[in-house]
Amino acid sequence: MSERATWDREGLAALPQRHRARLVNSLSGYKSANLVGTADADGVPACCIVSSVVHLGSNPALLGVVFRPPGDDSHNYHNLASTGYFTLSHVTEAIHEAAHQTSARYAAGVSEFDAVGLTPHWYGEGEARFPAPAVAESPVRIGLTVEENLLLPNRCRFAIGAIQWVDVDEALLCTDGFLDLAEAGTIAIGGLDAYHTADRLARLSYAKPDRPVEARTDFRDGWD
Amino acid sequence: MSERATWDREGLAALPQRHRARLVNSLSGYKSANLVGTADADGVPACCIVSSVVHLGSNPALLGVVFRPPGDDSHNYHNLASTGYFTLSHVTEAIHEAAHQTSARYAAGVSEFDAVGLTPHWYGEGEARFPAPAVAESPVRIGLTVEENLLLPNRCRFAIGAIQWVDVDEALLCTDGFLDLAEAGTIAIGGLDAYHTADRLARLSYAKPDRPVEARTDFRDGWD
Repeated sequence: MSERATWDREGLAALPQRHRARLVNSLSGYKSANLVGTADADGVPACCIVSSVVHLGSNPALLGVVFRPPGDDSHNYHNLASTGYFTLSHVTEAIHEAAHQTSARYAAGVSEFDAVGLTPHWYGEGEARFPAPAVAESPVRIGLTVEENLLLPNRCRFAIGAIQWVDVDEALLCTDGFLDLAEAGTIAIGGLDAYHTADRLARLSYAKPDRPVEARTDFRDGWD
Repeated sequence: MSERATWDREGLAALPQRHRARLVNSLSGYKSANLVGTADADGVPACCIVSSVVHLGSNPALLGVVFRPPGDDSHNYHNLASTGYFTLSHVTEAIHEAAHQTSARYAAGVSEFDAVGLTPHWYGEGEARFPAPAVAESPVRIGLTVEENLLLPNRCRFAIGAIQWVDVDEALLCTDGFLDLAEAGTIAIGGLDAYHTADRLARLSYAKPDRPVEARTDFRDGWD
């Protein structure tokens, strides 16, 4: 038996702030790493890294994103809330330092794209151009409209986005619809600041009560 | 330039159901892998795997969990909603097949713990015993009470849990509060059915506009 460390509610509350933030941010397990892309009313692009994207449904295709309580300088959140448009772009090993740096508090008028060296990618052309930019360096880009913008009890925001388009590197696409994120070098976040690549372990068959799980180590071939 | 594959809203809706589910479930990036533990009014334990836990805040410490629209046989959700208590336990490589198997639709009265070979772990003793079981085989266990139970527009549920206790393998705990999930063998999920272990890449310093990111490959030592 390994030794265990435990905290109750009071014990957690008594920890120094950063120590508690690092511990509690580790508790949900690995987190997705995405860049939120937006533009203001003048079309000036902005982006910020988030670790709080969650799948909500595939028909209709919906994703949720948690934003910490917005302040005056949360321009990505305010762009999203006022325009109703945003994008998500996966963070890979190749851009993880630039993506992390988007979390710095840049002065008003500075685009994080310029500041960290990422490239805005505008989906569609002319009148059909989607009004929020994605990230050119990313293998998986998604355009969304704001379906709901919920206020949570701790003053965080939970934005529910309806997927309008998806644009992925074809090399990731498996025959059955699965995207092989390990091939893309997509990142998994631990805690507040820890970046990980992923190793394929297995794809497992649809679970039924009366039969054992079947494991497949070839990720590309899929189940159909 | 790599070739890209794209879908608009109509293109996604026109895909065969399972193909669309696999694709859209891949879009959020890597997902956390947790077992929700509950008990019914008679104390009979139940558990199910979820890939939808999201960090909401560290003070107070709050986590969110998305549940698909509950049916009559969603006994974990109904236990959670009626008792107000649940646990989360990280899924590791050692238990990923058993954890996956909890998603099978077992008949009423069958505990997934028994069916898949996991062990209920009850935190606290006597009157202080927490009324929902965690998973003994897991290195990270968390006890929560239901703070809010939100109905989302697609009839999914978003349960907001207030953390009451945390119980972790001491070997994962770093000096600055960070938990080294790679040491634990904690799993990251891709799509509907793909399990991954993680490789440490770097911990990155708190981002400031006027200085470059500092990377640290020693995960244990932390930033304090």
